[in-house]
Amino acid sequence: MSRTVLMLPGDGIGPEIVAEAEKVLHKINDQFNLGLGFESGLVGGAAIDATDSPLPEETLEKARKADAILLGAVGGPQWDSLPMAQRPEKGLLGLRSNLELFANLRPAILYPQLASASSLKPEVVSGLDIMIVRELTGGIYFGQPRGVRELESGERQGYNTYAYTESEIRRIGRVAFEAAQQRGKKLCSVDKANVLEVTVLWREIMNDLRREYPDVELSHMYVDNAAMQLVRAPKQFDVIVTGNMFGDILSDEAAMLTGSIGMLPSASLNSEKQGMYEPCHGSAPDIAGQGIANPLATILSAAMMLRYSLNEEAAAEAIEAAVSKVLDQGLRTADIMSEGAKKVSTREMGEAVLAAL
Amino acid sequence: MSRTVLMLPGDGIGPEIVAEAEKVLHKINDQFNLGLGFESGLVGGAAIDATDSPLPEETLEKARKADAILLGAVGGPQWDSLPMAQRPEKGLLGLRSNLELFANLRPAILYPQLASASSLKPEVVSGLDIMIVRELTGGIYFGQPRGVRELESGERQGYNTYAYTESEIRRIGRVAFEAAQQRGKKLCSVDKANVLEVTVLWREIMNDLRREYPDVELSHMYVDNAAMQLVRAPKQFDVIVTGNMFGDILSDEAAMLTGSIGMLPSASLNSEKQGMYEPCHGSAPDIAGQGIANPLATILSAAMMLRYSLNEEAAAEAIEAAVSKVLDQGLRTADIMSEGAKKVSTREMGEAVLAAL
Ligand SMILES: CC(C)[C@H](C(=O)O)[C@@H](O)C(=O)O
Ligand SMILES: CC(C)[C@H](C(=O)O)[C@@H](O)C(=O)O
Repeated sequence: MSRTVLMLPGDGIGPEIVAEAEKVLHKINDQFNLGLGFESGLVGGAAIDATDSPLPEETLEKARKADAILLGAVGGPQWDSLPMAQRPEKGLLGLRSNLELFANLRPAILYPQLASASSLKPEVVSGLDIMIVRELTGGIYFGQPRGVRELESGERQGYNTYAYTESEIRRIGRVAFEAAQQRGKKLCSVDKANVLEVTVLWREIMNDLRREYPDVELSHMYVDNAAMQLVRAPKQFDVIVTGNMFGDILSDEAAMLTGSIGMLPSASLNSEKQGMYEPCHGSAPDIAGQGIANPLATILSAAMMLRYSLNEEAAAEAIEAAVSKVLDQGLRTADIMSEGAKKVSTREMGEAVLAAL
Repeated sequence: MSRTVLMLPGDGIGPEIVAEAEKVLHKINDQFNLGLGFESGLVGGAAIDATDSPLPEETLEKARKADAILLGAVGGPQWDSLPMAQRPEKGLLGLRSNLELFANLRPAILYPQLASASSLKPEVVSGLDIMIVRELTGGIYFGQPRGVRELESGERQGYNTYAYTESEIRRIGRVAFEAAQQRGKKLCSVDKANVLEVTVLWREIMNDLRREYPDVELSHMYVDNAAMQLVRAPKQFDVIVTGNMFGDILSDEAAMLTGSIGMLPSASLNSEKQGMYEPCHGSAPDIAGQGIANPLATILSAAMMLRYSLNEEAAAEAIEAAVSKVLDQGLRTADIMSEGAKKVSTREMGEAVLAAL
């Protein structure tokens, strides 16, 4: 039983933070005798520079064969003027769709040690623990037709298509109901069913599924209200399920409620539980190469990977405990620095987690 | 020069709050000798119950002839199971599109007297004053084709179209640049140009317009990042311009940063400056008929109406000063109540504003 993990460092701070997570995975591999093998590949801007494609065939092949993928981040200003089809983001979107990684799990958790980093009042966010389940391979991100066309009047019109089929909705709904079953048993489905037909179907299918999960309390909320409620009283939520675009917006908003987005991991799974794991934050080109980025979201993504794709719960918990320990020790990268703590570099943070393992 | 204001109370708390705003408008009309005439009409659920249509022809006729419209709110659970085309929201959307009210101005202002109502830390939101300019008659709200179709596989697919033409983008862009010129001269255009073609065109046109407004500093932000930045550091923004759907989400999020959405007015204008004015909050069916709703957002919407559609700046300022005065007096409806203040009903709040005029 040899299992392969593919490392895709990507762009910006990606290589720095993935390097630390890789050390952690190597050590855990030995400690728990996991028998993991490691590969690496190019994606995003790094792949464009080397091969002219944001998702080279070779990377896609490796990804298909891997049991799990750990991704840093993609994108940066030097590739921003490329046409849409050749941008770094297409590497990420191509991996998601080719591997059918339709279920994106984005926890928004407030670490008690970092409570003061939030821009919200402590009583509003203390103990925050939300799971956002975002559909990741459908909706307006992938809808056809799309493009820019010339109208008869001679002016141009840009257009995209927001579409979901019943089965696409049903499979992400199941993931969300199951996540709720394992947590607080509350699921809030977010849509805009008072305006958009596609989300009327979404709501109908979610209501259908309710019968299969009688122990889960299902509610519905319009996306504008959800954006408000996350600010007003985020602890009212347990699991939120929504489409690709609304999920992009709400998961980032929810993550920022904690004030420490440098801490938040994410998982993108397909129906075989093969998964891609990545930090919620982006490639942060402004601080790339300085050795000051926070590697913890990537290290915690590695823990999620052990839990969801590799079925190694004990190893996952060991990493999470080690991260908690370094926070208790007062070690902080610049993004989560606060008075009285000890400021450390990317590498020092990685080493501290290794030592805590 | 007789000018007409159409009052559309709508549903839920709509009639209660519009009644107070109407009294204020009558008094201002006399005090400033404005020569305004008043009409009223049915829209939303109230219109459905009386005429079977959320936007009766008679209401639309009155709206076309009016110089400005003051709307309460539409919608409620009793109409939620109606098919999309017959829902209360269609009354609102029909007014917006028939009158071509493409420019939606949504200020998010923190009243110093109500600072403690915010769920954010005081230093993050004190002095907050953002203007969100939302495109209101295009985008995915009105895009064709739309609906639910049966695929060859036999399963259903819901779909909507997100489209903008160059001229639609240009006209909302101009409104936003002009708003920025009159404020802090900073404009942030929000899109998802790394994924959606329609917003690549959006960004291109905004960049084009920059040349006409050299005194305004234009920046671009992806919508997910904007949702985060509003939570992290909202005071970085002056004017935000975005499309219909993103504007719906971000304007509600921004409004909730203040913690007192019961205070926030909005304006929806066409190119003749004819406008519809309404509170940012909804019809709040849960508290309808109890006489406890906050009428101040509607009263402040009447002030915006005087400013933007009726060109009566002095009268607008008189209303705003009166509202500020009642807040200084410590009067609070339930939604903005805090310790040491005096709790008042909808009517008492309206009377207090009248007295302060
Ligand atoms: C980089 C971008 C294409 C991506 C997305 O919008 O899905 C990112 O924002 C994310 O949320 O993973
Ligand atoms: C009621 C609804 C159709 C409306 C919208 O989505 O535009 C409301 O949320 C608003 O923002 O005015």
